[in-house]
Amino acid sequence: MSKSIFYHAGCPVCVSAEQDLVNLLGSENVSIINIGQNKESISEAEGRGVQSVPALVTPNGNVLHINYGASIEDLKN
Amino acid sequence: MSKSIFYHAGCPVCVSAEQDLVNLLGSENVSIINIGQNKESISEAEGRGVQSVPALVTPNGNVLHINYGASIEDLKN
Repeated sequence: MSKSIFYHAGCPVCVSAEQDLVNLLGSENVSIINIGQNKESISEAEGRGVQSVPALVTPNGNVLHINYGASIEDLKN
Repeated sequence: MSKSIFYHAGCPVCVSAEQDLVNLLGSENVSIINIGQNKESISEAEGRGVQSVPALVTPNGNVLHINYGASIEDLKN
């Protein structure tokens, strides 16, 4: 199984969800990308269907939006 | 580690999220409760902080609301 990708923006909701998911999935199974800091990754996340962060993109490409920290649109500004 | 609990109500969004989470976490690590069918479990889910389904309650008690299928309030009717 390839890795899941966890997109976040450093918000408190994001950090909490990140800790939970890393505990559940194992850190070796999740790539973590901060699209608040890496603005060039915003379009990558959008292309995968991410509408808000935190979000987990599964190895089969499904997007799980987890709780709600910020919308992708907000991060563009 | 004790099990996570996945609360759902049989909605398409719920079924999709259930399949993803079972794949990611392993079915042996998740208890699955349909609070659409088991109305008595609604108050249990609410007590754990679940506001909408699908949602995953982690072994440490954190609630991850995943995508959005239905609110707990809607399920009471």
